[in-house]
Amino acid sequence: MKKLINDPSDVVAEALRGMEAAHGDLIRVNHDPAYIVRADAPVAGKVAIVSGGGSGHEPMHGGFVGRGMLDAACPGAVFTSPTPDQMQAATTAVDGGAGVLHIVKNYTGDVVNFEMAAELAEAEGASVRQVVIDDDVAVKDSLYTAGRRGVGATVLAEKICGGAAERGDDLDGVVALCERVNANARSMGMALTSCTVPHAGEPTFTLGEDEMEIGIGIHGEPGRERMPLEPADRIVARLLDPIMEDMPLGDGDEALLFVNGMGGTPLIELYIAYRRAAELLGERGVRVTRSLVGPWMTALEMAGASVTVLKLDAELTELWDAPVVTPALRRGA
Amino acid sequence: MKKLINDPSDVVAEALRGMEAAHGDLIRVNHDPAYIVRADAPVAGKVAIVSGGGSGHEPMHGGFVGRGMLDAACPGAVFTSPTPDQMQAATTAVDGGAGVLHIVKNYTGDVVNFEMAAELAEAEGASVRQVVIDDDVAVKDSLYTAGRRGVGATVLAEKICGGAAERGDDLDGVVALCERVNANARSMGMALTSCTVPHAGEPTFTLGEDEMEIGIGIHGEPGRERMPLEPADRIVARLLDPIMEDMPLGDGDEALLFVNGMGGTPLIELYIAYRRAAELLGERGVRVTRSLVGPWMTALEMAGASVTVLKLDAELTELWDAPVVTPALRRGA
Repeated sequence: MKKLINDPSDVVAEALRGMEAAHGDLIRVNHDPAYIVRADAPVAGKVAIVSGGGSGHEPMHGGFVGRGMLDAACPGAVFTSPTPDQMQAATTAVDGGAGVLHIVKNYTGDVVNFEMAAELAEAEGASVRQVVIDDDVAVKDSLYTAGRRGVGATVLAEKICGGAAERGDDLDGVVALCERVNANARSMGMALTSCTVPHAGEPTFTLGEDEMEIGIGIHGEPGRERMPLEPADRIVARLLDPIMEDMPLGDGDEALLFVNGMGGTPLIELYIAYRRAAELLGERGVRVTRSLVGPWMTALEMAGASVTVLKLDAELTELWDAPVVTPALRRGA
Repeated sequence: MKKLINDPSDVVAEALRGMEAAHGDLIRVNHDPAYIVRADAPVAGKVAIVSGGGSGHEPMHGGFVGRGMLDAACPGAVFTSPTPDQMQAATTAVDGGAGVLHIVKNYTGDVVNFEMAAELAEAEGASVRQVVIDDDVAVKDSLYTAGRRGVGATVLAEKICGGAAERGDDLDGVVALCERVNANARSMGMALTSCTVPHAGEPTFTLGEDEMEIGIGIHGEPGRERMPLEPADRIVARLLDPIMEDMPLGDGDEALLFVNGMGGTPLIELYIAYRRAAELLGERGVRVTRSLVGPWMTALEMAGASVTVLKLDAELTELWDAPVVTPALRRGA
C-alpha cells in the first residue's frame, strides 16, 4: 500500500485538520463527533442541508460545505457510514429554525443511520426531512444497498438544493426540488483499477491488466460486467446507453452532463470521455447546456469514471448557476 | 497501459474537443495549431498572458484560461513542449495591443520555443516579454532543464499576474509582478508511483513497492533521492525543509501554502499533507493566510504530491483573491 498517510487509523481525523487549516474562512470542523459546518452556521431562517457518508470520496461531501451548497457534512471512516450521533450533532449545529434536509446516498448504512439521526434531532425539536438519492442505473440491489445506489446525482442535488435554500425556499420546496433532481438524473460508472482502503491495506478487488469493470460502485461494489478493456469511445457508450434507456430525455431537451473521475484517472482522459458523451447526446437531439468535469466524487485512487446526465429545466439551470462558495466548488462572490 | 483513451495519437486533440464542448462559455479552442484562448480574446488594451507546455499536467494550463488568469494556453503533446508556431499563433490571437507576457516553466524546450515564438510575434508587431519560472529547489540542472525546474509557482504566477492584467497594469508592471512571484516562491515534490505516457505505453520509470522518490520532476525526471517509503509527516518535512532553507521567509511573515497532487494521490491524503506543512510553517512563526490544495499541476496518474510556499505581501494577497473565471479555477462572478 503506497499512500501519503501516517497511521491508517488517523487518516480521516488528520485530513479534517488539514481542511480546517486550509479553509477556515469557509468552514468550521468539529472533531468529536466529526462534522464540518459552514463558518456562519446556523443561518437563521434558512433551510439547512446536511449530507455525509464514508470518507474516501473527497471532495464529496466536506468540500461542498459553504454558502450555496451544504450547511454540514458528516464524514465516516473510509468507505464506512458515519454514525447517527455525528449526523444528529451536525443537524442540531446547523438548524436555523426553518428545517433540515438530509441528502442521503442510497447505501443501507447511510439511510438507516440518517433516519436514526433524524429521530434524535426531531426529539430535540428540529424538523428533519430525508431525500435518498438513487441514480445509479448499473445494478438493482448491490453490496451495501437495497435498490439503486446513490452516486453522481448527489453532487448535483447538493448544489441545486443549496441554491434553493439560499434564496429562501421553504423545507417542502427544497425537498421537492431534491426529489426532482433525483428523478431527472441517471448515472453509471466504470473502473480500470481497484483502490485500497487504508485500514485494509490490500486492494478492495482485483482487475486483470486487460480488464475493466462496467457499472461498478464507488466502493468497488460489483457492477454489471467485467470485460476486456476497450477504447474510451466504446466505454462511454456502454455507460451512456443504459442511462438514456432509463430516463425521459430526448430530442429538444436540455441536460447537464457530468463526467466524474474516480480519483486515479487524469483530467485529460475525462475530457476525452466528456467529448464522446456530449457527441452521443447531441446525436439524440439533447442540448448539453451545462457541464461538470473532474474528480468530484472519487473512490480513493481508483482509476475510472462515471457519467451522470441531469435533465434540466429553467429553474434547475438557474439554481445550478447560482453562487456557491465552498472549498471545492466556487462560483460568484 | 490502462487508460480511458482511444488512439494514443489522438489524446490531446480529443481532450481539446472535450474542453471546447464543456467550457464553450469561457474558452475557444483552435485546433491547428492547437491553442486555447479566453472566449472574449483579444481584450483591447489589456496585457495578454500566454502560457503552455506539454500536456498531461491538466488542469494546467488550459484549465486556467479565462478572465482573471490566462488569455491563452498552448498544449504540446503529452510531456512534450508545444511548438513555436502554436505559441506564435496564440500570442497573435490574444494580443490586445498592450503587450503579451509569456509565462514559461523552466524546461529547455519550452524556453527555446517560447523565445522563437516571441521573435516571430514581434516581427509581426507584438510586444512580447518572457518570464521563466524556476521554483523547484529539488535539483539544479536536470533531465530537460538547465537550472531549476518550473513547477507549482507557475499556477500562482498565472493567477496573480492574471489579476494584475485584468485590473489594468501595464506590461512592465505585470512582468515585474511575475518575477516577484517567482522570486518569493519555492517548491519541491515527490512521487509514490510512476506514470505512463500514452505513446510510450510503459511507465516512465519504476519504483519498488516500498520506495518513493523525493524531489522528482513533473515528467518523472530524477529527484534528489530514492528511498524507503515513510509516513506522510516525515515526507512533508523532507519537502518543506529544503524550501525553507532556500527562501527568505520567517517569523511574522505571511505565506500562501499550496499542496499539489500529482494526479493519482487522493484529495484526503493531500489534506493530511497540508495539515502537517501548515503546522511546520506555524512552528517557524509563518502565518499561512492563503491556501490551495488539490491536483492543480499533475503528472498524468502519478501518485505523489508537491509543496509550494509563496511569501505574500498585501498586493500579492489582493491579486490572489481577485475574481477568476476559468474552467478549473473560479472565484467571483
